[in-house]
Amino acid sequence: MTTKFDELCQELETIWHQQIPLSAAMRMQVVSFDGVTLITRADLEPNINVHGTAFAGSLYALQALTGWGQTHLQLRRQNIAGAIVIATGKIEYKRPLSENIVVTCRFEPATDVLVELEEKGRVRFPLATQVTTETGKLACRFRGEYAVKLLV
Amino acid sequence: MTTKFDELCQELETIWHQQIPLSAAMRMQVVSFDGVTLITRADLEPNINVHGTAFAGSLYALQALTGWGQTHLQLRRQNIAGAIVIATGKIEYKRPLSENIVVTCRFEPATDVLVELEEKGRVRFPLATQVTTETGKLACRFRGEYAVKLLV
Repeated sequence: MTTKFDELCQELETIWHQQIPLSAAMRMQVVSFDGVTLITRADLEPNINVHGTAFAGSLYALQALTGWGQTHLQLRRQNIAGAIVIATGKIEYKRPLSENIVVTCRFEPATDVLVELEEKGRVRFPLATQVTTETGKLACRFRGEYAVKLLV
Repeated sequence: MTTKFDELCQELETIWHQQIPLSAAMRMQVVSFDGVTLITRADLEPNINVHGTAFAGSLYALQALTGWGQTHLQLRRQNIAGAIVIATGKIEYKRPLSENIVVTCRFEPATDVLVELEEKGRVRFPLATQVTTETGKLACRFRGEYAVKLLV
């Protein structure tokens, strides 16, 4: 059975691949979304570096875009039209990654940012994402500040 | 006349395009290097986002790779063989960019990091890069910590 979340995930992947060429070059895909946790992935091969491990730029772009996608999904499920941009990003590379890249992003803001968005017309909040190895070790973690403006 | 720096820049671009597929997807090029300042560029079109401006992930990847390239060139001109990785990255997006992307990175470390590398076998130092608009306004600035290990 196709759920509302499955449809939103398919829509998100289509937006990425049609409107952000680099997401297609990275072969970025949505794995799952349950309303809170968004998981995305990309093959290692198009995202490799000179050391044969995941390219730092790909790890950043995949995580920044996962945070963007998380925000997009939260707006879409509430039928809110908003323009989402990233204002700042910070990333730490903890160990080289020699496997396909899986990104996890939980939506757990400290305040109700969607209510604030509807009241004030704009909101800014942090989102964290991480990439762990298949054996559960942290490879990379990212934190971005996202700014959303209500489209009316 | 082709200078030593021109040859090193050509070599750097070849390494990027052959060994880092995403650099080719972004159409990243070396513009110039004078021993201190490295300038790189990429067309906007393959690096566009849903807003028709430069994708945040591309802006990060181009700047992180320019810092990597700056480090590579400093090692090559001294004939030092080293493995370069980025340990952390921080980026601020100041305004949307609707034109081709030009990155500037100056090599001006506080200490002589190449001497430290040769003495200790490894060194870690920050590099800053920026993207300005054609009219000279700051679009984006990046700061990365690079770690280099001597290859012997």
